Amino acid sequence: MAKRVAIGQAGGPTAVINASLVGFVEALHQEAELFGVYNGYQGLFENDMEKLDSELLGWIKLHKLVNGACLGSGRYEFTKEKMQRSISHLKSRGIDTLVFIGGNGTMAALQKLSEEARQMKYDLQVIGIPKTVDNDLAETDHAPGFGSAARYIATSVRDISRDLCAMQNFEQVRILETMGRNTGWLAAASGLLKNGEKDGPHYIYVPERPINHALFIDHVHEAVRSYGYATVVVAEGCTINAYTDQVEKATVNGRAVLGGISKVLEDIVKTELGVMARAEILGMNQRSSSTTASTQDRIEAYEAGREAARLVCCDETERMVTIQRTTDLDYNFSMNSCPLHVVAQGGERFLPDAFIDDPEAFYNWLRPLAGKDLQPYPIVRKRRIRNEKHKHSSIPSS
Amino acid sequence: MAKRVAIGQAGGPTAVINASLVGFVEALHQEAELFGVYNGYQGLFENDMEKLDSELLGWIKLHKLVNGACLGSGRYEFTKEKMQRSISHLKSRGIDTLVFIGGNGTMAALQKLSEEARQMKYDLQVIGIPKTVDNDLAETDHAPGFGSAARYIATSVRDISRDLCAMQNFEQVRILETMGRNTGWLAAASGLLKNGEKDGPHYIYVPERPINHALFIDHVHEAVRSYGYATVVVAEGCTINAYTDQVEKATVNGRAVLGGISKVLEDIVKTELGVMARAEILGMNQRSSSTTASTQDRIEAYEAGREAARLVCCDETERMVTIQRTTDLDYNFSMNSCPLHVVAQGGERFLPDAFIDDPEAFYNWLRPLAGKDLQPYPIVRKRRIRNEKHKHSSIPSS
Repeated sequence: MAKRVAIGQAGGPTAVINASLVGFVEALHQEAELFGVYNGYQGLFENDMEKLDSELLGWIKLHKLVNGACLGSGRYEFTKEKMQRSISHLKSRGIDTLVFIGGNGTMAALQKLSEEARQMKYDLQVIGIPKTVDNDLAETDHAPGFGSAARYIATSVRDISRDLCAMQNFEQVRILETMGRNTGWLAAASGLLKNGEKDGPHYIYVPERPINHALFIDHVHEAVRSYGYATVVVAEGCTINAYTDQVEKATVNGRAVLGGISKVLEDIVKTELGVMARAEILGMNQRSSSTTASTQDRIEAYEAGREAARLVCCDETERMVTIQRTTDLDYNFSMNSCPLHVVAQGGERFLPDAFIDDPEAFYNWLRPLAGKDLQPYPIVRKRRIRNEKHKHSSIPSS
Repeated sequence: MAKRVAIGQAGGPTAVINASLVGFVEALHQEAELFGVYNGYQGLFENDMEKLDSELLGWIKLHKLVNGACLGSGRYEFTKEKMQRSISHLKSRGIDTLVFIGGNGTMAALQKLSEEARQMKYDLQVIGIPKTVDNDLAETDHAPGFGSAARYIATSVRDISRDLCAMQNFEQVRILETMGRNTGWLAAASGLLKNGEKDGPHYIYVPERPINHALFIDHVHEAVRSYGYATVVVAEGCTINAYTDQVEKATVNGRAVLGGISKVLEDIVKTELGVMARAEILGMNQRSSSTTASTQDRIEAYEAGREAARLVCCDETERMVTIQRTTDLDYNFSMNSCPLHVVAQGGERFLPDAFIDDPEAFYNWLRPLAGKDLQPYPIVRKRRIRNEKHKHSSIPSS
């Protein structure tokens, strides 16, 4: 008898999470009876699922190049009771396999659902497909979603920095805030297309190393003095010195929405250097932009979905699909998998010191994921700068 | 003897302002001695110009697809004395032609420079090349820069709305703020790719019509009730009811930097509807994004530069290049020109009532400029929404 398999999407959408869904359903729809779970784990708890008939499958397949999560996603806090009820819903529908596309929280919940089902004596197969723009999932070389977000950030920071470079008689400093939660992968990606020291971004701050207030002011002052402008990138999870907490915009369903560190830095620059500074949060396009999505990222997201289908057919369980990097002939990748509990044990994966201390090594690692087609712009020529408005109040001018 | 011609760029850069510069220098460099003016009118006043030798010309030509203003741009307030000094600089260099790429302010200044030169008995030819993302220049069907910004906004709002649609158990309302200064051209462009009533943007507010506070709340409430989420677009220049001033972020060199109306609306939604709302300013990418630039816009920007070169050779003066729309065989365009003083008299061009009242007519007008390749996404399917958190404090739920 054909397996009955439910598939859902959870957490913040990406430019390519639907590509994973399409890869999965295209590989499996002839082998199994498929069900879509709506709005992530909330739909599982609320029994909000639907059999994927040919019309629904056709509609899903239209989303291969479409950002967002077409089944609906979301953030949801499970309790033991909610898990048990979710499993009863699966049981009553005769669904014996549950596949979710998501990040750290999604994988941890999948593992717990599996354990809960075992206690309920229900034989439930669970498989996870990785997805995160933050790239903070352990055990995989990188996660689908990251390459597209990195591409958006690298091109946006390059473009916004060129715009600032041209406007230095009007404003001198832009502080661009990236996603990434507690990790610096995305912020670091902003330097990928920098072409020479006059080009931006001039400084990048990652949460792995707290910002030193005095050094930050020195950095900005030095860039404005030398190039006439300073493009600064800061990850949303950064803290200033070792004392300050992360800056939070809101708390929703118990989850902190980070955001605002760029505005804190803008105020510091305005007050202490007396130059025009503008904070900008790069916003939802980081995870949403379909026009800037990385083709390589889309291919890998699709293949991750197909690999999950293969694992379902092979009766594997409690595993997450992983991407392995192979470099025999330039960049290439292969699909693999690892136990879900190992992903959970790994916790958040941070940007390693080796990449922070050697940005070129990081860019070489990143380039195939964000797109080898990306070219840096022509060099920035030195121009005479006449800004007499800098107060340099805290820094002796040199 | 060959003419000596100075070219400069002024005002906020766009994705295609360099394409106009490249078009101009490619068409004229064999006919005339060219000089680049750095950092807009400030460079003119400070005599910060350079002869474009073959090396510099080669470097400029590398910028055909590059956003920003490679000569440097900026905002600059002229006085009569500063104009006279600027003209003396041109005179001392034997420069008899001045060409600037810019918007309303730039064109008005060009006209005044010409009048000032006449009073100084200096025979100065002046030609303007239009450039504005805001599309608020009179006498031209549209201005180079607008099509690319419109494309960025249309695709971004589509993508961010799909992201929100998937996250409606976490947040229900996004208020996206566009550029446009006092006009609604860019905000209106956000609806270009909307596919059906369930798709975003659900409401668009333009400065030409003040926002009615009570109606705004009704709109958002109705969208959240019907679709589970509301994507709202608001132009930076909008006011609420007839009483409130525009929201300003800063004043720099006497010029108001608009920004923040979306945050005002976010607070209204949170307070009066009790749902999670997030304001987002679409940011500098609106005028900067080179990855989303419209090919048609680039072509027209380049051709506008070439047309200016032709006007220079024909000894025309006090004229701005204009784009004429021809629709004999689908969309096409031809280059024309008009007197600078007529542009100045025209003032800011607002979004006409005909387009506000008939969005489809506007989208048909806009589509060839933003790119006929743009396709709407698949339709949004209706999903069961269970949000019990809406307080609907001010609105009886229906």
